[in-house]
Amino acid sequence: MAYGYWKSGRGEQEVVFNLFFRRNPFKGGYAIACGLEYILDYLQNFRLDSSDISYLASLKGNDGKVLFEADFLDYLSNLKFSCTVDAIPEGTVVFPHEPLLRVRGPIIQCQLIETPLLNIINFQTLIATKASRVVWASKGESVLEFGLRRAQGIDGGLAASRAAYIGGCDATSNVLAGKLFGIPVRGTHAHSWVMSFESELEAFETYAEIMPNNCVFLVDTYDTIEGVKNAVKVGQKLREKGYKLAGIRLDSGDLAYLSIQARKILDEAGFSDTVIVASNDLDEEIIESLKNQEAQISVWGVGTKLVTAYDQPALGGVYKISAIRRKDGSWDYKMKLSEQSIKISNPGIQQVKRFEKNGEFIGDMIFNEENFTESHSYTMIDPADSTRFKTFSDEKNENLLVRVFENGKITFQNPNIQQIRNRVKEQLSKFHAGIKRFVNPHSYPVGLEENLWSLKHELVRRLRKKM
Amino acid sequence: MAYGYWKSGRGEQEVVFNLFFRRNPFKGGYAIACGLEYILDYLQNFRLDSSDISYLASLKGNDGKVLFEADFLDYLSNLKFSCTVDAIPEGTVVFPHEPLLRVRGPIIQCQLIETPLLNIINFQTLIATKASRVVWASKGESVLEFGLRRAQGIDGGLAASRAAYIGGCDATSNVLAGKLFGIPVRGTHAHSWVMSFESELEAFETYAEIMPNNCVFLVDTYDTIEGVKNAVKVGQKLREKGYKLAGIRLDSGDLAYLSIQARKILDEAGFSDTVIVASNDLDEEIIESLKNQEAQISVWGVGTKLVTAYDQPALGGVYKISAIRRKDGSWDYKMKLSEQSIKISNPGIQQVKRFEKNGEFIGDMIFNEENFTESHSYTMIDPADSTRFKTFSDEKNENLLVRVFENGKITFQNPNIQQIRNRVKEQLSKFHAGIKRFVNPHSYPVGLEENLWSLKHELVRRLRKKM
Repeated sequence: MAYGYWKSGRGEQEVVFNLFFRRNPFKGGYAIACGLEYILDYLQNFRLDSSDISYLASLKGNDGKVLFEADFLDYLSNLKFSCTVDAIPEGTVVFPHEPLLRVRGPIIQCQLIETPLLNIINFQTLIATKASRVVWASKGESVLEFGLRRAQGIDGGLAASRAAYIGGCDATSNVLAGKLFGIPVRGTHAHSWVMSFESELEAFETYAEIMPNNCVFLVDTYDTIEGVKNAVKVGQKLREKGYKLAGIRLDSGDLAYLSIQARKILDEAGFSDTVIVASNDLDEEIIESLKNQEAQISVWGVGTKLVTAYDQPALGGVYKISAIRRKDGSWDYKMKLSEQSIKISNPGIQQVKRFEKNGEFIGDMIFNEENFTESHSYTMIDPADSTRFKTFSDEKNENLLVRVFENGKITFQNPNIQQIRNRVKEQLSKFHAGIKRFVNPHSYPVGLEENLWSLKHELVRRLRKKM
Repeated sequence: MAYGYWKSGRGEQEVVFNLFFRRNPFKGGYAIACGLEYILDYLQNFRLDSSDISYLASLKGNDGKVLFEADFLDYLSNLKFSCTVDAIPEGTVVFPHEPLLRVRGPIIQCQLIETPLLNIINFQTLIATKASRVVWASKGESVLEFGLRRAQGIDGGLAASRAAYIGGCDATSNVLAGKLFGIPVRGTHAHSWVMSFESELEAFETYAEIMPNNCVFLVDTYDTIEGVKNAVKVGQKLREKGYKLAGIRLDSGDLAYLSIQARKILDEAGFSDTVIVASNDLDEEIIESLKNQEAQISVWGVGTKLVTAYDQPALGGVYKISAIRRKDGSWDYKMKLSEQSIKISNPGIQQVKRFEKNGEFIGDMIFNEENFTESHSYTMIDPADSTRFKTFSDEKNENLLVRVFENGKITFQNPNIQQIRNRVKEQLSKFHAGIKRFVNPHSYPVGLEENLWSLKHELVRRLRKKM
């Protein structure tokens, strides 16, 4: 397609693309924008190197002839990223149809970066959202991300650890993610530690001698209740030496039943400070259910179901063209039609205003930056139901998209991972709790500013008439 | 845990670990081993560099003191991989409980590599298996992997493209995977190509002028049937110039209905050679269903549901210790107990024999290489039902695990990707079709050689008695 644009002399035509998703993941009420850090890095280093060009030169078409002519490959090898990019910062709560990224520049560049942008944003947004749900279910208790061994590839693990921490997890078992991103690392010993000794008791004792300050014993290698009793025996020795039994970990069986039994055994032996860590295919729904059953768990190790977003392993983010610059300098607005109205894209140079009242966010309005003037009052229309509208008067508001690249030069300093993680907490605290619940969440109002709404409908009519 | 082994003076103790999964993915009848190439690369380059050591040195325990003493970090920085590794080659059909990898060496090394081995094998085996199912559903028609934009991270996309090709896909839209792995690349233009022109017809015409040899038109940007008619118009011009209309692509709507309508329009206009490519959240079940509805599709673009293994996004592979070398040189066999018998691991230095009769594979026997002699007759017992057994007499057989590292030195030349892909086809052709069906697949016989079975049961009794 890039070759087509170049060959038809349209490669430099200025266009606008928007990256957005159409439905909240996990049948939930929101998503957490994540992945911009990777995008900034990718775009700053964007280029096709000589090995890329050689590879493209080797490709042949159906007729056995080379696919791309040499001048095009020359063009590609000299290509420098020159687009202007606006983005919603990482850690922001976002909703369907809001542009997470808006890219303006030569069509050939906008198109070449499409797939990396989608790959990065789709996945990290998905995982940050999943993590925030798991953390919500834990009601303030500690959540550890334990997923690397089942993650989808190496970066599927690394990027997931980053996104999970941003979404609210407290630590990861992924030591490389700890090193690269500054995420706290946590973990326990595995079954193999226990199995490598003659007995479980000996395994716990040896561990306690070596790391008396960090004793969390995995108790289910052979029999969970016996394992708890062995942990208590070693805990008593630790206590005599002035140390504490930090915790025990359950990794199989009926976690509700076993945690209650374990808590009793620990309490009766005077280890009421010893925490119970649980893991084994946990997700937000299982955590919620275990809490309803009064399971005595206060640290949650969540792995596979978090890092693969098991119940919905892909966010359906798309990247659609919304405007093309005409020769006279004006914008020709574009949209994709579809039989399904949810698949009709929005035209325009889109920006999003988020309105706030008494410390609570009350609605987001997507508008066209062209032909828009700041005012005291705005009206937006529900894109799914044109009889519904909402008016904002003198409400505090901010534009969600910020400039991150200006004509190919980076203009944005991404916050550090702690700041991004804090942003998630702050943002979530300012939304009505209804958007966070798992079953039939509240639908937060996101509308089209009235002029954009009219523009869209005029375009639909024009396109349908043409056909 | 590594620190614990080192500190207790047991870091060099020789052990054996096995990597295996417990259930076939996708409720299917088999899996395709994949990922060994990455493992070979990882293990050849295994080391902790100075930045890793600095990071580990910075970690602090609960008491605020450094977690690891300097001598241990010295030990790690000088660590050289010295294990002996046996593996089932990529592209081999495998079954639950068969060791895909067997690692023998110092316990500290075996343990440090656990997570990378699981991450790589779990994911690539999952995707190669998924791809083989999709290809099976397509009944010999071409399957293109289109998943990068929805894959789980960058390597989640790259490794998935590789595994999908190995599993039987014909090409990928992932150009970097094409470059890195030598996979054929294929694709079509996108909706944005059409939207960037004044009309769909103009978009198709321009494309045809530039790439008359590779014309596959995406016809559903505005209205599918109108799109097919526009493709036909441009196809007629192509024909006049001596070219062919290679194909059209459907990417939304009712693919059964639309492909039948499109086929009619194409045939009536004399384009019976023009293929219909379809995409849009396809997987093996949708392909099977579309074929049952006589959809007129002959090239299948499969993306999200393939590269994320959407219906089961993780393979539950595990890595368990099965033997420890005693001081006297004999092996102390190890296993993990569990309330659930499927979670009880197998002891021993495991190898797998696959038996063949009249060109068909008839059963796999897991045995303990120690105390084993090749013979004319073998008996294996069904681990799930001890009343069922199977005897092989003079049947052709081969050992599935081959040596890939000997004391840390690589001893195996991995086949190229074409050879691996061919192995999948050959292997699958030698199994009864029943294991390939999607609903209630035939359960291929995998048993424990009778001595291993006895060893396992003796160990279970001993462990249960101890508790």
